Amino acid sequence: MIKVIVPATSANIAMGYDCLGMAVNLFTSVKIEDADKFSITGCDEAFQNEDNLVYQGFIQGCKHLKREVPTISIDIQSEIPESRGLGSSSACIVAGIIGAFEYFKEDVDKDVILQIATAMEGHPDNVAPAIYGGLCIAFEDSNGHYDVIKYPVDDSYYFTAVIPDFKVSTNEARKIVPKEVKTTTVAHQLSHCLAMLNALSTGDIKQLKDAIDDRLHEPYRKKLINGFDEVKKIVEANDSVVYISGSGSTLIIISNSSDRRDKIIEALQKRFEKFSIKNVEIMN
Amino acid sequence: MIKVIVPATSANIAMGYDCLGMAVNLFTSVKIEDADKFSITGCDEAFQNEDNLVYQGFIQGCKHLKREVPTISIDIQSEIPESRGLGSSSACIVAGIIGAFEYFKEDVDKDVILQIATAMEGHPDNVAPAIYGGLCIAFEDSNGHYDVIKYPVDDSYYFTAVIPDFKVSTNEARKIVPKEVKTTTVAHQLSHCLAMLNALSTGDIKQLKDAIDDRLHEPYRKKLINGFDEVKKIVEANDSVVYISGSGSTLIIISNSSDRRDKIIEALQKRFEKFSIKNVEIMN
Repeated sequence: MIKVIVPATSANIAMGYDCLGMAVNLFTSVKIEDADKFSITGCDEAFQNEDNLVYQGFIQGCKHLKREVPTISIDIQSEIPESRGLGSSSACIVAGIIGAFEYFKEDVDKDVILQIATAMEGHPDNVAPAIYGGLCIAFEDSNGHYDVIKYPVDDSYYFTAVIPDFKVSTNEARKIVPKEVKTTTVAHQLSHCLAMLNALSTGDIKQLKDAIDDRLHEPYRKKLINGFDEVKKIVEANDSVVYISGSGSTLIIISNSSDRRDKIIEALQKRFEKFSIKNVEIMN
Repeated sequence: MIKVIVPATSANIAMGYDCLGMAVNLFTSVKIEDADKFSITGCDEAFQNEDNLVYQGFIQGCKHLKREVPTISIDIQSEIPESRGLGSSSACIVAGIIGAFEYFKEDVDKDVILQIATAMEGHPDNVAPAIYGGLCIAFEDSNGHYDVIKYPVDDSYYFTAVIPDFKVSTNEARKIVPKEVKTTTVAHQLSHCLAMLNALSTGDIKQLKDAIDDRLHEPYRKKLINGFDEVKKIVEANDSVVYISGSGSTLIIISNSSDRRDKIIEALQKRFEKFSIKNVEIMN
């Protein structure tokens, strides 16, 4: 029996639109066993078929290893909510591919897993941190190969995931972002992203607050997230920052004091009873 | 007598459009002395008047220090060519401001100099490295205050400035860049800028070559630089990279081998007899 555990991931990280991603400690845990008959258990019935992303990942892993796909049973236990901007599909894909490598007792080469997973997912923003952990970007070189660059995050930061009781369709969230932006916005995004990475590495919360000022997707996607403005107001009143994880609906709060974080959580829990609010940690 | 020496600066640095800048070892050297009569010597006659940027910087420095502007003579000796994208005006402004601080025996506080110089120049891309040295960005916080973030550059790189025999008007170079870009271009620029900074810090020339692929200004500004495509061809054939310094006309070549660098210089000198080609070093 093979067991693979893959973390949730938060893409974009405020100023890193379609580039940065970060692994956090919510997990998808997958068991793979030889079986007489193909089966999938543990997940929603809608996913208990051959289209299941864990199984699809497993198949791609077998293909890469030039092995016939064995008959297996898969059990999936996941803490990562679906369609909430926490990389649930990426976690499944990565778990399936790694599962195939482990099934055939092959070395799990992160670089190889990244290439396969990115080809399946279409972009590396979530699969890269799901595989490498931490805060990272995956950069596509001129041969179409993805390299990972990791960024340090200071220990003084506390991260909290605010997971609404509604989904946001990735497709809809993509459509709502304008196709063009002003050229001056590019310099704004770039300088602010560099400042954000600097602030994340040094623990300078003042700089972090100044740096997080996204003009690419937040102004549009927040309309799909009921309560966003109110959450942001509460967060900012407590000297902290918040960004839309991936394309939402999850919001990630960053504080540098557990007191302030707890105050924010208390206020949010009162106001948004149906939201799930979880303290999370970066998985390095 | 006060003597102030300020380095040339190369802004944009390929993927850091309107953000990054780097100090290099070409200098503007300014002497300031008490005099019976205001005078400026050493520079082009067109600049020997009160509009001179060194003098204007000196005046702003005096204003900040709440001192009356004394009657001075200024002598300017500069290796930095004008209107070539090497920060000649920023060097003058910075020299003038520092000159005022030194004249009145005040501590030269880089942070204060940066705020004054940026207000004069309109943007911090050149004045920040002129003051702080090295490769840096100046990031504007929510109070309009500029903070500097410095980036390391690996010792294995060689830099060469190719200075054409013609100027490029900054105004024209600004106009030629489209006002809008595709949103997908922002992610391209951002991921490639992060990869470029990583490659500059690690010495990974392969990653540097992949990372340098500007889609914001080079495709347009190169039209103002006669010979650009030919220079680029020669540079790339020798496993090196080239970018437009500031808004041109100077091009900066980055190699990681003195042999390759020398081959490039030989080829360029043959083809572009009137261009000035100088090996430069980062001033940290």
